[in-house]
Amino acid sequence: MAGNLLEVHPDRLLPADPGTRAIARRLYDRVRQLPVISPHGHVDPAVLLDNHPFPDPTTLLLTPDHYMTRLLHADGVELSALGVGQGELSEAASRQAWRLLCERWHVYQGTPVRYWLEAELSDIFGVTLAPSASSADAIYDQISTALAEEAFRPRALYERFGISVLATTDDPCSDLAAHAALAADPAWHGRVIPTFRPDRYLEPGQEGWCGAVAALGRSADIDVGDYAGYVEALERRRRYFVAHGAVSADHSHPDVRTDPLSPAEAARIYRAALAGEAGPGEAAAFRRHMLLEMARMSCEDGLVMTLHPGVRRNHHGPTFQRYGADVGADIPFGVEFSDALRPLLERYGTSPGFHLVAFTVDETVWSRELAPMAGFYPCLYVGVPWWFLDAPYAIGRFRATVTETAGFSRTSGFVDDTRAFCSIPARHDMSRRVEAGFLAGLVAENRLGEQEAADIAVRLTSDQPKAVFKL
Amino acid sequence: MAGNLLEVHPDRLLPADPGTRAIARRLYDRVRQLPVISPHGHVDPAVLLDNHPFPDPTTLLLTPDHYMTRLLHADGVELSALGVGQGELSEAASRQAWRLLCERWHVYQGTPVRYWLEAELSDIFGVTLAPSASSADAIYDQISTALAEEAFRPRALYERFGISVLATTDDPCSDLAAHAALAADPAWHGRVIPTFRPDRYLEPGQEGWCGAVAALGRSADIDVGDYAGYVEALERRRRYFVAHGAVSADHSHPDVRTDPLSPAEAARIYRAALAGEAGPGEAAAFRRHMLLEMARMSCEDGLVMTLHPGVRRNHHGPTFQRYGADVGADIPFGVEFSDALRPLLERYGTSPGFHLVAFTVDETVWSRELAPMAGFYPCLYVGVPWWFLDAPYAIGRFRATVTETAGFSRTSGFVDDTRAFCSIPARHDMSRRVEAGFLAGLVAENRLGEQEAADIAVRLTSDQPKAVFKL
Amino acid sequence: MAGNLLEVHPDRLLPADPGTRAIARRLYDRVRQLPVISPHGHVDPAVLLDNHPFPDPTTLLLTPDHYMTRLLHADGVELSALGVGQGELSEAASRQAWRLLCERWHVYQGTPVRYWLEAELSDIFGVTLAPSASSADAIYDQISTALAEEAFRPRALYERFGISVLATTDDPCSDLAAHAALAADPAWHGRVIPTFRPDRYLEPGQEGWCGAVAALGRSADIDVGDYAGYVEALERRRRYFVAHGAVSADHSHPDVRTDPLSPAEAARIYRAALAGEAGPGEAAAFRRHMLLEMARMSCEDGLVMTLHPGVRRNHHGPTFQRYGADVGADIPFGVEFSDALRPLLERYGTSPGFHLVAFTVDETVWSRELAPMAGFYPCLYVGVPWWFLDAPYAIGRFRATVTETAGFSRTSGFVDDTRAFCSIPARHDMSRRVEAGFLAGLVAENRLGEQEAADIAVRLTSDQPKAVFKL
Repeated sequence: MAGNLLEVHPDRLLPADPGTRAIARRLYDRVRQLPVISPHGHVDPAVLLDNHPFPDPTTLLLTPDHYMTRLLHADGVELSALGVGQGELSEAASRQAWRLLCERWHVYQGTPVRYWLEAELSDIFGVTLAPSASSADAIYDQISTALAEEAFRPRALYERFGISVLATTDDPCSDLAAHAALAADPAWHGRVIPTFRPDRYLEPGQEGWCGAVAALGRSADIDVGDYAGYVEALERRRRYFVAHGAVSADHSHPDVRTDPLSPAEAARIYRAALAGEAGPGEAAAFRRHMLLEMARMSCEDGLVMTLHPGVRRNHHGPTFQRYGADVGADIPFGVEFSDALRPLLERYGTSPGFHLVAFTVDETVWSRELAPMAGFYPCLYVGVPWWFLDAPYAIGRFRATVTETAGFSRTSGFVDDTRAFCSIPARHDMSRRVEAGFLAGLVAENRLGEQEAADIAVRLTSDQPKAVFKL
Repeated sequence: MAGNLLEVHPDRLLPADPGTRAIARRLYDRVRQLPVISPHGHVDPAVLLDNHPFPDPTTLLLTPDHYMTRLLHADGVELSALGVGQGELSEAASRQAWRLLCERWHVYQGTPVRYWLEAELSDIFGVTLAPSASSADAIYDQISTALAEEAFRPRALYERFGISVLATTDDPCSDLAAHAALAADPAWHGRVIPTFRPDRYLEPGQEGWCGAVAALGRSADIDVGDYAGYVEALERRRRYFVAHGAVSADHSHPDVRTDPLSPAEAARIYRAALAGEAGPGEAAAFRRHMLLEMARMSCEDGLVMTLHPGVRRNHHGPTFQRYGADVGADIPFGVEFSDALRPLLERYGTSPGFHLVAFTVDETVWSRELAPMAGFYPCLYVGVPWWFLDAPYAIGRFRATVTETAGFSRTSGFVDDTRAFCSIPARHDMSRRVEAGFLAGLVAENRLGEQEAADIAVRLTSDQPKAVFKL
Repeated sequence: MAGNLLEVHPDRLLPADPGTRAIARRLYDRVRQLPVISPHGHVDPAVLLDNHPFPDPTTLLLTPDHYMTRLLHADGVELSALGVGQGELSEAASRQAWRLLCERWHVYQGTPVRYWLEAELSDIFGVTLAPSASSADAIYDQISTALAEEAFRPRALYERFGISVLATTDDPCSDLAAHAALAADPAWHGRVIPTFRPDRYLEPGQEGWCGAVAALGRSADIDVGDYAGYVEALERRRRYFVAHGAVSADHSHPDVRTDPLSPAEAARIYRAALAGEAGPGEAAAFRRHMLLEMARMSCEDGLVMTLHPGVRRNHHGPTFQRYGADVGADIPFGVEFSDALRPLLERYGTSPGFHLVAFTVDETVWSRELAPMAGFYPCLYVGVPWWFLDAPYAIGRFRATVTETAGFSRTSGFVDDTRAFCSIPARHDMSRRVEAGFLAGLVAENRLGEQEAADIAVRLTSDQPKAVFKL
């Protein structure tokens, strides 16, 4: 017995009420085929540059994707058994990890991970069996066979996915060689752009900061022995990113406070930090000041500033020690924006051309803080639901709470933020379905005309991310 | 081309499911024509006393309404271009501001501001074109023409709106002359009552407090050189307001802490504050003590106490410096009620006849704090959604979170809280529709009989605000 | 006139949309008759041991149930008039309290209390009149008559309710005699198990702690003059509970911080506390350390650890002084889990066999903190909505926020947590209806197959509580 059939319903995720569903279907039809714009994510550009075949189903779909591995870990599976931290997997190890996934398929019921993976299995690989203990090997073999084909190489999939632009996330010291080589490749017709992500250079309290700053100085070819040099190094590297096509700078710190320091105080803490003598309070003060500085630089060099705060990284020490970062053990906590961003907004909130996108995994701030601020400050856009909140009901809550205070025009447009390349079309498709459903609800309740709703659906999919991210 | 037609659907804002909508329609029919009770708002009583024609569409509907101007500002329009801070507008400036509104009409899609303005344009002025660049002038002209007619003067509209009582918000030093003159006018058949709003007299940490207190003393004809005189001055002015028809006292501070000070300590801080020597901590302690004193006075003089905390006023300094307060740059933040109100509730929570209404723009406290407290303390009512939350989905969330813990009887009844006179009927109508929809959902899910639901709809519209505000 | 008929609709609480309702009805049919598993509650085991007839309707259904009395109190009724703190009630007092309930029946509209009591009146007692002033005496008489019958004695009701296991909540010093006698009674075929609830032994800052600890030492037959003896006493009493059938230990403190102390520091504070010399900061530090110790003990003796934090007990001092605890004046406040539980989870988060169930009355932590943690840590389950949140819309919000991040398998299964014996079947039934409705929504939106949804419904009702609570 090979298990049940995989059902990927054409109307999935659309509202249940028949009248509303009919409207949603029409709205979704307007956007389903539009190009994918991905202004923030974590795909490795070398994948597209090298265009090597993906090695095996587990390495492609399971091991590196912490959305997948975390729920199996919670269900009692060791991360090592899923290939995490195991380097290149043997055929046996890869197949065994895949079986664990299929046997425990039920842990994903009701989660977006399931919607994504089902869409990937069905739409990309033509799988027709639902994952289960009995179907695991057959599905594994089917995907393996496909991956050997030319049509499943990264560039072919990029084309097939209809991606028009794909942003990566990059270290400020990166030479962006892969991006440059891709751009110079006459056989390549896509657009892959880097994103400036300076977190660790702004956190003197984190291990390795001194070494990072030294590398930054070398990369920018400037002496970073004092604060002025350090600031200049960051500015130079941002300009280097701009020259290589970057449109945004991304920041993920525990909070988004932006309290300014006097130049003398900033310089003093900088010196102390280099000498290993800055305390935790000073390190935090410096980072907050530097976040404000990042906004100033964005006003000058035009990079869109994006914020992703409020996550306690590597919550479980033993897991971090064994497997490193980004394995599903990052846990959100409450975060405050109204007072935290005030110094930044007082200075740059009405600065022409400045764009600031605030994402959150603390959904209480949507109606309370972000929508009210985005409804006043021309620079500020509310980022769409991200990470744990990038899911149908959460997207519905986002629109229901943000729209009434800030409308649609003050939101960012969809961002997939993924390192799972094959999930990109499924993620954008899920968002388009859910947005169509939300808009259909407004139409069905006679709050909005259907033509207007269709215009909004298209705008949210195409115009809005292009405008917000200056694409 | 004159643009699209303005569609104000008779079933707008009612639930989409046909069965539920049919119930909602019947419930709404029970309340749609009931008189408007407005126990908290910001209309200037002189408007009704003088009964001058409204000057022009922009001055009436756009410039003074920060709900309208904030989203245009976020969309890149200078507040000055909307007439803010420009004094009396020329015909050209007024028309130009109106065009900006109509051209950018899409920024209001999905917001209550749009539902309100559409209803105002259609129901009050008979406009049939949707606002757009091409229809702007025609709509402007149509409203201008109407405003010159007798039927569009303030008193005529008051009648037409079906208002039975309208509360204003007033400075404790006000002589309430307009209220008195109105009440004495034999040609006036409405009811306009003042509200005691003493915020700035209770905040020694705010600029201008000493001058305010001196004026309070003069107004109450008592020496406020010591704390006892200051307290007596407040009590006298409250009695003056009661004598002029006031039923409530409104309080809007950053938090609602009510920690008592000893009389000696209160007197000491009062003296220090008068001498300009009270620190920020002392000023906050004094204000919190005075909020508790306000509750005591409410127990004595019967004024309903209303709370509107948790808003950072004038968040953007440059805007405040240029345009002053109340232009859309007030931003909410998290606020705590359970511990903050405990001293007040321990003292006065079961005091006979004492009414306390707690509003919030931090909706997380509805289910967590306010509904549990209102479900125990006889004095406490949960205020309906206010400001950013006075919107269809937010009202739905309010009822869905508060009702299960506190029922319907522990809520305030609708409060429009507006300075936009013409939006009053539209706001009450929106609330009646959304409440009808919520109740219809309970009926459709067989949680409540339809007759009971109809009784509740009427109660929430009429009996509840009358009882809670002692009207 | 006897008032309106009591309507308990067979489809009550199922979704309104006809298609979704049809699915929900089928799902509900799969679970409606399944045995009741009650792994956490507050029924007195002596009730089942003695099997005395219940005295009267008021004493059975109203007086001891703070869910009932709190809303009447808010509506202006003195608790004493409802029998609270009055000892055994006279027939006149009992009937008068019952009349107050029936006259003010409308205060429960839209609350789960009403759904429960209606189901109890109808399903258990066959009442056909809706409570009202005119029906109060007839209903009272009908219930009184029933209570005298054999079929309405506690054990008969236990059978009729279909309870398969019922957990009580017990003091660590309890000899569990009632549990033992019940287990030894050949005429008894049910299962009543104790729960270890050590709160007051872990709070040196609370009045009476020294006496409690002395009693603990006597109960465990060990010298608790030093910290080691105290810890050993707790361990012994836990083992005693395990030997008497306990499967869990329940903890309700203001917060869930679990910061460790060094053994020497713990011992020092313990000595200071015994001498009455521990400050509030030390007392809190000790309690937090002991919560971590409780987790260690759970890893060793297998008791499931449950957390119920974030409630300010006895919020209204005068009520506490007059009536004591548990009369409806406990008020929730915000609570933090991500950082608070980190020390515990770093140590025991992946400990084999350790189960930790986190309940909350601060629903903001569901999506932000609990679901992300339960989606990674194998020990952690998100407790279903509890107390104020054990209500249809709140359960819907729970599933909508938790499922997308943690699926169904990381939740606890239903817990009634009640002291109102007759409400047990109504509470479980309400939960089954609402869960069926939620699952039906997923099916109707083509997110889940109906067969899968039926499997989940059964799992949530039977397998999940059995597995999570090791039954």
